[in-house]
Amino acid sequence: MNDQYAAMWEKLNLDLEAHDALLEVLGKFYNDIYLSQEKRLRGMEYLDFVLAEIHGLRIKELKEAKENGQKIIGTFCIFVPEELTLAANAIQVGLCAGAEAGKEKAEKLIPRNTCALIKSFIGFKLARLCPFTESCDLIIGETTCDGKKKAYEVFSQYVPMYIMEVPQQKYLSDRELWKNEVLKYKNKLEHITKNKITPDKLKKAIKIVNEKRKALQRLNKLRKAIPTPISGRDVLLINQISFYDDPLRFTKKINELCNELEEKIKKQEGIVSQDTPRILLSGCPMAVPNWKLPYIIESSGAIIVGEESCIGTRNTRDLVDESAETLDEMIDAIVDRYLKIDCACFTPNLERIEHIISLAKELKIDGVIHYNLLFCQPYAHESIKIENILREKNIPILSIETDYSMEDVEQLKTRVEAFIEMITP
Amino acid sequence: MNDQYAAMWEKLNLDLEAHDALLEVLGKFYNDIYLSQEKRLRGMEYLDFVLAEIHGLRIKELKEAKENGQKIIGTFCIFVPEELTLAANAIQVGLCAGAEAGKEKAEKLIPRNTCALIKSFIGFKLARLCPFTESCDLIIGETTCDGKKKAYEVFSQYVPMYIMEVPQQKYLSDRELWKNEVLKYKNKLEHITKNKITPDKLKKAIKIVNEKRKALQRLNKLRKAIPTPISGRDVLLINQISFYDDPLRFTKKINELCNELEEKIKKQEGIVSQDTPRILLSGCPMAVPNWKLPYIIESSGAIIVGEESCIGTRNTRDLVDESAETLDEMIDAIVDRYLKIDCACFTPNLERIEHIISLAKELKIDGVIHYNLLFCQPYAHESIKIENILREKNIPILSIETDYSMEDVEQLKTRVEAFIEMITP
Ligand code: SF4
Ligand code: SF4
Ligand code: SF4
Ligand code: SF4
Repeated sequence: MNDQYAAMWEKLNLDLEAHDALLEVLGKFYNDIYLSQEKRLRGMEYLDFVLAEIHGLRIKELKEAKENGQKIIGTFCIFVPEELTLAANAIQVGLCAGAEAGKEKAEKLIPRNTCALIKSFIGFKLARLCPFTESCDLIIGETTCDGKKKAYEVFSQYVPMYIMEVPQQKYLSDRELWKNEVLKYKNKLEHITKNKITPDKLKKAIKIVNEKRKALQRLNKLRKAIPTPISGRDVLLINQISFYDDPLRFTKKINELCNELEEKIKKQEGIVSQDTPRILLSGCPMAVPNWKLPYIIESSGAIIVGEESCIGTRNTRDLVDESAETLDEMIDAIVDRYLKIDCACFTPNLERIEHIISLAKELKIDGVIHYNLLFCQPYAHESIKIENILREKNIPILSIETDYSMEDVEQLKTRVEAFIEMITP
Repeated sequence: MNDQYAAMWEKLNLDLEAHDALLEVLGKFYNDIYLSQEKRLRGMEYLDFVLAEIHGLRIKELKEAKENGQKIIGTFCIFVPEELTLAANAIQVGLCAGAEAGKEKAEKLIPRNTCALIKSFIGFKLARLCPFTESCDLIIGETTCDGKKKAYEVFSQYVPMYIMEVPQQKYLSDRELWKNEVLKYKNKLEHITKNKITPDKLKKAIKIVNEKRKALQRLNKLRKAIPTPISGRDVLLINQISFYDDPLRFTKKINELCNELEEKIKKQEGIVSQDTPRILLSGCPMAVPNWKLPYIIESSGAIIVGEESCIGTRNTRDLVDESAETLDEMIDAIVDRYLKIDCACFTPNLERIEHIISLAKELKIDGVIHYNLLFCQPYAHESIKIENILREKNIPILSIETDYSMEDVEQLKTRVEAFIEMITP
């Protein structure tokens, strides 16, 4: 594979040697965590293919799109409205990074006490390892957590950036500020793509993104079955790939996978036995290839049946109202939909704990594992709150704080195994 | 002293034994760091008295004010407009805490990776050690850094809180949001004090707070003299006390001190010799009794001639325009003045580095020491930026990250001494 794309990567100014090494590690890691799974679904073949080609075919597609005049927009947060990006005939890709790379270089630009996700996207850039970052015409930052907000300041010296201000509360004046930000983003898109966002185009784009969310909602509904027909790792991968793949193709493939799941459920064919402890994973986003904790959980005798995170239900729960007709109505519908996001960056963010409790019931889980990236302050604060509230409700919870290193795997495994033993029915 | 106030503290539900122990430690600490200074100014006697009586006489005054129907408003950030508080005939006190207390208890409610300032105000509350917190009728939080924003959520279960949203950028829509927040705060004050804020009252309050700022500006101008007539420790103490003391009395006393400084300067009587290396201290706020680093610096042969922080010039640099006549004009003047604050919580916050550079020139400093509380992300990010920019400009800079513990004193001393040796002219 590497030979086929080497010229393309070289043009993107990647460090070819380091990049080859990365792909090799990634391949092995994927093999251990994904391809080794028993009773793999047919529909996952597509995801395996996409993942294998994530730096290859998909980058080639982006390259061709660019040659056809399309712009590539990179993002780090589910607050950037993909509807607008698509309506401007641009392509949106997620740039969150889930592996350690270029850490020493990154720590010269941002504090050591920064979460691994931020260190990773800075490190990937400095080590010239990410073909997505290099393909972007514009990268959108947002004022969510302190870590990202301040890291973008230095990141903007290396890539073309644009910052959206996400408010910190959800009152009327916050909505006004956010609407203004959405409109400014629309203008920015129109300016760089030279495409006008018409009501017609926006209506179509809203539909495309909603259909993607609906496919993921359907997947999340189907996996609720007991025994569940799909592993949590696989659903996480699907969620991760939803940030990179072409939305129309992705939606079609996920719906095909869902058809397969329906068959399995009819035949009561689970991926695990009926009495496997069911886990809701909640917390910080898990970017590709951050599969450490899900792998530990699912190789310790439990199964993940829900992800309460941005690379999970937080990104797919709410649709944009499709009844709007005028541009302004559509913008309002987008503004309202995005302000429903229950990120820990908001205060007081009471919606999130309500969502966790209702997910816990709905998914018939045996326990919650809360995942916090070390030095992520918003989610660390909420993890204490959530622990206390779930304990009061007699919902078992284990709170894990970790980063991208593999040093704590054994220690995490011990804690996770003890928790699973405790909650096994 | 303790006997005299014991009944009052008991009524405030303080832990008397622990509080006595705290006062004793504080007294010793103050003695070593302040009273041992040579050539002490006459005018500092007042500050020594206020500090000695900070939990005594001042709390008694607040108690009497409360008995007369005045409300006490606690704050943690210089974004809370004291002008409005005073115009509602309420008293505003700073609650930032600069000592380790109740740390274990605090770490059950907030993450271990939280800055010492936040841990301290939560710890003081949980350990029942702060008579100011206990005297407050309302405590104002703000959405500045992630740490405080999220800590207030749990803090509000222990004290009556109100949150002001501080925006993260300074565009037109941010100003609108902030104006709305200022108006909401005005309403809140009117509601709890039952006093209407009239143009007349507000005009007077603006004047009172401006006069306080002007006295501190005068102090900062006078200390520029070579040799400087006052220690940095003393000016820090003055800044710290400005958050607790009655504003009219404080202003009068600081102006008297300034008169004394003028005499000294005329006679060329410095607190140190002419060739003592001059330091600009920049960074996180230093709340009472956080004197660790200033003491280390000034006992290592240097003198601090400026504090670029919220307990320093950031709080006194800008006045509210006094030409406004209508209530709305005055509110606008307040809104604009507060939006000039160059806190690291803003992005991109380019003003701050400009202020540092111009202060460095104006104060004829030999070096900058940047002070960062461990786990404070906004200032940690900026410290890297500032280091790089000052190095380019050949302004020596030492970046220190620490907390409230005394464990690193020797290590800090070694680093500071080496830096001072390097910059000694
Ligand atoms: S966790 Fe918050 S900041 Fe991070 S991607 Fe989600 S919404 Fe954005
Ligand atoms: S994991 Fe936390 S600290 Fe890291 S980028 Fe997301 S919200 Fe910010
Ligand atoms: S540093 Fe920022 S958050 Fe802290 S008191 Fe100053 S303005 Fe407020
Ligand atoms: S020192 Fe930093 S982290 Fe601590 S309260 Fe101030 S801005 Fe927040």
